[in-house]
Amino acid sequence: MKRSTSMPPPGGKLAVLLPGMGAVASTFIAGVLLARRGLGLPVGSLTQMGGMRVGGERVRLSQYLPLARLDQLVFGGWDIFPENVHEAAIHSKVLEPAQLEPVRAELEAIRPMKGVFHPQYVKRLHGTHVKTGATKADLVEQVRQDIRAFLRDNDCTRAVAIWCGSTETYVAADQVHASRRAFEAGLLKNDPSITNSQLYAWACIQEGVAFANGSPNLAVDFPAAAELARHHEVALAGKDFKTGQTLMKTVIAPALKARMLGVRGWFSTNILGNRDGEVLDDPESFRSKEITKRGVLEEILQTGDHPELYGDLFHKVRIEYYPPRGDAKEGWDNIDLFGWLGYPMQMKIDFLCRDSILAAPIVLDLALLMDLAQRAGRIGTQDWLGFYFKSPMTEPGRSADHELFLQERRLKNTLRAMMGDEARGPSSTEGDD
Amino acid sequence: MKRSTSMPPPGGKLAVLLPGMGAVASTFIAGVLLARRGLGLPVGSLTQMGGMRVGGERVRLSQYLPLARLDQLVFGGWDIFPENVHEAAIHSKVLEPAQLEPVRAELEAIRPMKGVFHPQYVKRLHGTHVKTGATKADLVEQVRQDIRAFLRDNDCTRAVAIWCGSTETYVAADQVHASRRAFEAGLLKNDPSITNSQLYAWACIQEGVAFANGSPNLAVDFPAAAELARHHEVALAGKDFKTGQTLMKTVIAPALKARMLGVRGWFSTNILGNRDGEVLDDPESFRSKEITKRGVLEEILQTGDHPELYGDLFHKVRIEYYPPRGDAKEGWDNIDLFGWLGYPMQMKIDFLCRDSILAAPIVLDLALLMDLAQRAGRIGTQDWLGFYFKSPMTEPGRSADHELFLQERRLKNTLRAMMGDEARGPSSTEGDD
Amino acid sequence: MKRSTSMPPPGGKLAVLLPGMGAVASTFIAGVLLARRGLGLPVGSLTQMGGMRVGGERVRLSQYLPLARLDQLVFGGWDIFPENVHEAAIHSKVLEPAQLEPVRAELEAIRPMKGVFHPQYVKRLHGTHVKTGATKADLVEQVRQDIRAFLRDNDCTRAVAIWCGSTETYVAADQVHASRRAFEAGLLKNDPSITNSQLYAWACIQEGVAFANGSPNLAVDFPAAAELARHHEVALAGKDFKTGQTLMKTVIAPALKARMLGVRGWFSTNILGNRDGEVLDDPESFRSKEITKRGVLEEILQTGDHPELYGDLFHKVRIEYYPPRGDAKEGWDNIDLFGWLGYPMQMKIDFLCRDSILAAPIVLDLALLMDLAQRAGRIGTQDWLGFYFKSPMTEPGRSADHELFLQERRLKNTLRAMMGDEARGPSSTEGDD
Amino acid sequence: MKRSTSMPPPGGKLAVLLPGMGAVASTFIAGVLLARRGLGLPVGSLTQMGGMRVGGERVRLSQYLPLARLDQLVFGGWDIFPENVHEAAIHSKVLEPAQLEPVRAELEAIRPMKGVFHPQYVKRLHGTHVKTGATKADLVEQVRQDIRAFLRDNDCTRAVAIWCGSTETYVAADQVHASRRAFEAGLLKNDPSITNSQLYAWACIQEGVAFANGSPNLAVDFPAAAELARHHEVALAGKDFKTGQTLMKTVIAPALKARMLGVRGWFSTNILGNRDGEVLDDPESFRSKEITKRGVLEEILQTGDHPELYGDLFHKVRIEYYPPRGDAKEGWDNIDLFGWLGYPMQMKIDFLCRDSILAAPIVLDLALLMDLAQRAGRIGTQDWLGFYFKSPMTEPGRSADHELFLQERRLKNTLRAMMGDEARGPSSTEGDD
Repeated sequence: MKRSTSMPPPGGKLAVLLPGMGAVASTFIAGVLLARRGLGLPVGSLTQMGGMRVGGERVRLSQYLPLARLDQLVFGGWDIFPENVHEAAIHSKVLEPAQLEPVRAELEAIRPMKGVFHPQYVKRLHGTHVKTGATKADLVEQVRQDIRAFLRDNDCTRAVAIWCGSTETYVAADQVHASRRAFEAGLLKNDPSITNSQLYAWACIQEGVAFANGSPNLAVDFPAAAELARHHEVALAGKDFKTGQTLMKTVIAPALKARMLGVRGWFSTNILGNRDGEVLDDPESFRSKEITKRGVLEEILQTGDHPELYGDLFHKVRIEYYPPRGDAKEGWDNIDLFGWLGYPMQMKIDFLCRDSILAAPIVLDLALLMDLAQRAGRIGTQDWLGFYFKSPMTEPGRSADHELFLQERRLKNTLRAMMGDEARGPSSTEGDD
Repeated sequence: MKRSTSMPPPGGKLAVLLPGMGAVASTFIAGVLLARRGLGLPVGSLTQMGGMRVGGERVRLSQYLPLARLDQLVFGGWDIFPENVHEAAIHSKVLEPAQLEPVRAELEAIRPMKGVFHPQYVKRLHGTHVKTGATKADLVEQVRQDIRAFLRDNDCTRAVAIWCGSTETYVAADQVHASRRAFEAGLLKNDPSITNSQLYAWACIQEGVAFANGSPNLAVDFPAAAELARHHEVALAGKDFKTGQTLMKTVIAPALKARMLGVRGWFSTNILGNRDGEVLDDPESFRSKEITKRGVLEEILQTGDHPELYGDLFHKVRIEYYPPRGDAKEGWDNIDLFGWLGYPMQMKIDFLCRDSILAAPIVLDLALLMDLAQRAGRIGTQDWLGFYFKSPMTEPGRSADHELFLQERRLKNTLRAMMGDEARGPSSTEGDD
Repeated sequence: MKRSTSMPPPGGKLAVLLPGMGAVASTFIAGVLLARRGLGLPVGSLTQMGGMRVGGERVRLSQYLPLARLDQLVFGGWDIFPENVHEAAIHSKVLEPAQLEPVRAELEAIRPMKGVFHPQYVKRLHGTHVKTGATKADLVEQVRQDIRAFLRDNDCTRAVAIWCGSTETYVAADQVHASRRAFEAGLLKNDPSITNSQLYAWACIQEGVAFANGSPNLAVDFPAAAELARHHEVALAGKDFKTGQTLMKTVIAPALKARMLGVRGWFSTNILGNRDGEVLDDPESFRSKEITKRGVLEEILQTGDHPELYGDLFHKVRIEYYPPRGDAKEGWDNIDLFGWLGYPMQMKIDFLCRDSILAAPIVLDLALLMDLAQRAGRIGTQDWLGFYFKSPMTEPGRSADHELFLQERRLKNTLRAMMGDEARGPSSTEGDD
Repeated sequence: MKRSTSMPPPGGKLAVLLPGMGAVASTFIAGVLLARRGLGLPVGSLTQMGGMRVGGERVRLSQYLPLARLDQLVFGGWDIFPENVHEAAIHSKVLEPAQLEPVRAELEAIRPMKGVFHPQYVKRLHGTHVKTGATKADLVEQVRQDIRAFLRDNDCTRAVAIWCGSTETYVAADQVHASRRAFEAGLLKNDPSITNSQLYAWACIQEGVAFANGSPNLAVDFPAAAELARHHEVALAGKDFKTGQTLMKTVIAPALKARMLGVRGWFSTNILGNRDGEVLDDPESFRSKEITKRGVLEEILQTGDHPELYGDLFHKVRIEYYPPRGDAKEGWDNIDLFGWLGYPMQMKIDFLCRDSILAAPIVLDLALLMDLAQRAGRIGTQDWLGFYFKSPMTEPGRSADHELFLQERRLKNTLRAMMGDEARGPSSTEGDD
């Protein structure tokens, strides 16, 4: 197939900077290093494994798009614990130790820079490897210096950042988030509404580093961040990786709606024992997550349009810290649906998944696609990347798609558009029902 | 919204003829009668409850399309047992007896015509209310007379037929099915490859009655039937209502593929205790069903395109007759999937559904949409109705879509096209990934 | 078989007094009334359906024991809402309305006496049908008068009380519960540690009415109550009916232990939507329940004896208020077990049960067996009734059995002993492993 | 505690001979070798991990009983494939390869003797490492020579045999099994009712080797074998290891009965992908297994005593060969139960277990306990070992206990009796309800 666009393939190395280098980050890095050597398949990654139709043909994304190659990636990041990435991988017990051996030296060489850590936003963890500074503005400055040093020391031409850290306690956007000016004043005054993730994000944007947010934290989801991103011409995306239970919810709910089956209740619980679970055991941290996890059903089921089917929907989401399970999260859903004449039925879904195994390929895709967007000059919120997020960020005034297949089409049509090819199907947020 | 087409709303009564008047048919009829009186909602019916976007607006299908109204329907059919529809509803234990009371007299008045019954195709049942005839051609003729008499006696202007009967033993299409001439010769010779459902279908087509097939039986899925339908300008559709487990399969498999997650195995079992379960307890009958239930995964997961993800997929489907459950079918699925670096995960789906409750709204939609197609002059196989079938019939040389959301879009785009409105998204069988 | 004892069958009517006349009480009463007329089977009741071996024979409990007959029971009680029992049954949606019709008049005639209601112990409910009094002592006196009036008006020779009310907020036993004298002083001073259930219990004991406690409330589980019971020669039992999830836990945990399989974690969640669920949605009320639900595993798995198998056991119990389900509670358990060389396995148990359907036969058995114990002169805590309770009360210094089959044997051996027959197997709390 | 008996601890080595050296046998052997070195715990083994009460004390079985020590065991056996035990362990994918490394040399040194293989009894397998002989009598003689040679070469004082091979096709006991004389005539005539497992068993008994049968095969479950065992004073036990689903069934069914809850249906399916699953995919082999798996419910639920609760019980058991799962069997049960007034409830149990991990400790216990029985002079059928079997063999005219806790008590009381201590609770087959 003729390459339809003139965007050149990328030269030079791409720094992938990860605030938070625990289970997800170490699984991601180890997997990329193994895949480079042909010792593992990056299953779950659209950019590496996936294809799509362009014109009359079916193409691999990796061949169609001028993406950075795996061997052009350099990994770095920050953490509040000093473990190197091999240690983090061992402690998080996601990958088998034997599997890590071939890339052990490479993993050990990747050591986190000191983290930004105001403990009031991160419950249940006690960081020991942390920056100090009189003001939040000072900390932003330190992160900026980290970025510049990393690029220089590693001979990288550019960077992207993917937040892989913990969920912070719930903080609503307020006045300090309303404008760039207010935010910068807040940094100097140590405004309590400015959390750790926002400091990383602010530094990245100022350094021209595209930033995607894998957690429910505010991070880049407020007007001042959008304003700063426009100014520095930086791409943003978020928030909260859509991995197990919510992923399924965003296909099953549309299926029930497609068939006009009613839903009276949807109960979702999760048991997990990793650091994420420990953090979410704190009610304030859970609240952040609950909000991103709960929003999906209402949007999908259009309760306004179908009050007789979805008007009484009771939706409850729980996350339970349960150490015996480690990273192997289990999501259990019960759906109370009804059909013809209101007769009740039930569906139970038990998803024995693995948190970091599902998140790692998303980190990889976002790193490559955010870099692509940045190079293509697509700045601001990348709502076409909603495919990867529980709570897709959008440009102001636009509503988010939650249905997985609408998100998939939109992502692919955006890629076609970037490459100068024709869309397949509408890419609006409206769906096509 | 301006009605964009000139197709007039239908006048006169529409006969809905049901070969097989057991659990599904009685649930369907009772529900329509109750809905007419405002005593029940036809949940699950797109034509009654659903909407779609046309131009900039969202419209109800019932307002947008010139469909027959519920109060224009007249119900009839055939069965090999003489029970009236009230008796059938009571015996099948789908609806609560108290709920049937307001329409009891109407239900009792609907008595099946004698059924066509060659027992070698219908295992485990012993029909007592059956036609006799020297040849299969004679039986076709008797069914044709039944149809004409029914239309005359009930003052109907036209009819549609929806097969709601049992699954027949597996019979492959062979020479006798290859042409109209061969089939008619076969009728006279009592060819053993011509089953009961084919006799009904042949009679219906000759009488200009559109025919949709809710079972995996061949019925109208062979070249001679297509030829006859073209000759008589009749619409056909099939086959095998997509209700519980397969419905979910056709959204979950695409979701896994969208995310490039691998699948090693998919085990599906069903327990049910209604007449359908009893029939499917027979291995030859189960084979018919197994074929329609198994085909979906291979098509959706495109094993050829992604051998590293789906090349080893082991797919097994079982149906178990289990009387304690009656019509309340339970489908249990186990999916063995894998992600990043091949790490295994599992998903279990337990669908406590109700067979007839899920099938009844499909019967209603097909009755109204087949009638619409017939009036709109769309003859031959209605592949846009694949949304409702496990194994969608297509015109020769076309492949079927199995993914629910592609089927939904195609159905809705076809309706838009019938009404002279613009499509939303591609309607091809290719999907838009 | 020769009746081996001289205890005479009971004459006269037995008042069954129920503090709390909601779902459980109305299901119990309606079921007994229906069973009397042969319109329903009291399934789940050992006294009505069960048998046991005595000597060489197998006997029905109802024939072996001099129990009150169903037609000798008279039902009464208290509630903080004025609904009669028919209304309560309809509102709780446990039994089908049509099924209640034959006994509707009898149910309507049973109206609760005004309840004792200090709202701080009963979260989420707002009682309207309540007693008033200056002190808690006054309220006890009013309940005593209620009891005397009920016995007189209904021509009963005696009464038993079974607590069927809500779970109260957690209140630990303290000084006021230490002796009869302290408690009576506390009643006069409105001591805040004295809850509603304790007032009913105190009144019952003073009136010589045996009292069994179906909730986790303290009620009669404190030294002053035991002292009072000895003084008035009254039988006590409790606490918290063992119905769904805990019932299964007390057979599955012993089975794992019998086979020396290890357990790393046990996660139990419950969804239910009845009034009980609403109350337990309050964290303080849940704490009462959590304590009775969590204690069972440690006792059964003897973590001290087998630290390598059970020493790290993580046990978590959750109850989630989920209105779509009403009284049809669903308990979902996940057990993380391990075997040979520590290899992990999992078991999941999904119990789609019905709260009141499982509790009603326990109320019946306790009413009859407490009456039997009282007549037999067995006073104080009836630890042989632990079979029916999540957290069996014992005499001071004795530990409770939780394993269902040990409890069953003890119950039956106690009955044999009451009747002068020989025991089968040890009845100690030690088990026989 | 004073040792109450004079049975001396065993001197010399004990040969553990295993007909069938695949997944179960290799898991068992590797585990014992690892446990000897302190590299793994023999979890699931009562003799190694368990305790019981004797007199007033709690004792470890390993200290109480004069059992062979793990370091006195020598492993051998027969198989129809020539793989050594390390190869078998690797191929069966039960234990992690890395875990086998410390004992690799020992495992490699254990090579199966050539197997007895008439393929008509073993479907789906094609043995290559097999004995040849003109008659079945010749093959018995060869096995006897194997045993004598093994004992001599390995310096063992005695042996026990535990059948760990495949399920054979169903063969009913007939005339040839009626007496020792008839059986020996049959051996000479190659009677088709004499299967492979019977040849091993016959040889073992003649050599004075106690024989326990882990499969549903007839093996030693016929009168001629009993007669021969009496003549040679040999202990026998069987049949079919009780591991996952049936283990749970034998505690849950008694619990439902204890509470007088009714059962309308019990559906059990299993998915597994090991060699056992492959064999059981053959209908004739499945029939053997089905019989042992199905018998348990009827015995436990005493349908004769409680026709209103269990008279209509529909019980169905399925085993499905499903290669993706390997040895990690999953058993899924659905129980349709009912309570008060007949209201239906459901329980679903999903047991993600591991076939060989659950079987290995049973092999160990049986090896040690059969040796103990043999040394204690207990000959013939050891019905006190029913604890370990799906279909416990008994002496003629006695019925088997299936309830796990009755079996446990009987086992422990038998051990107490062997040691001259007092029983706890009745040991009869009657239970104590």
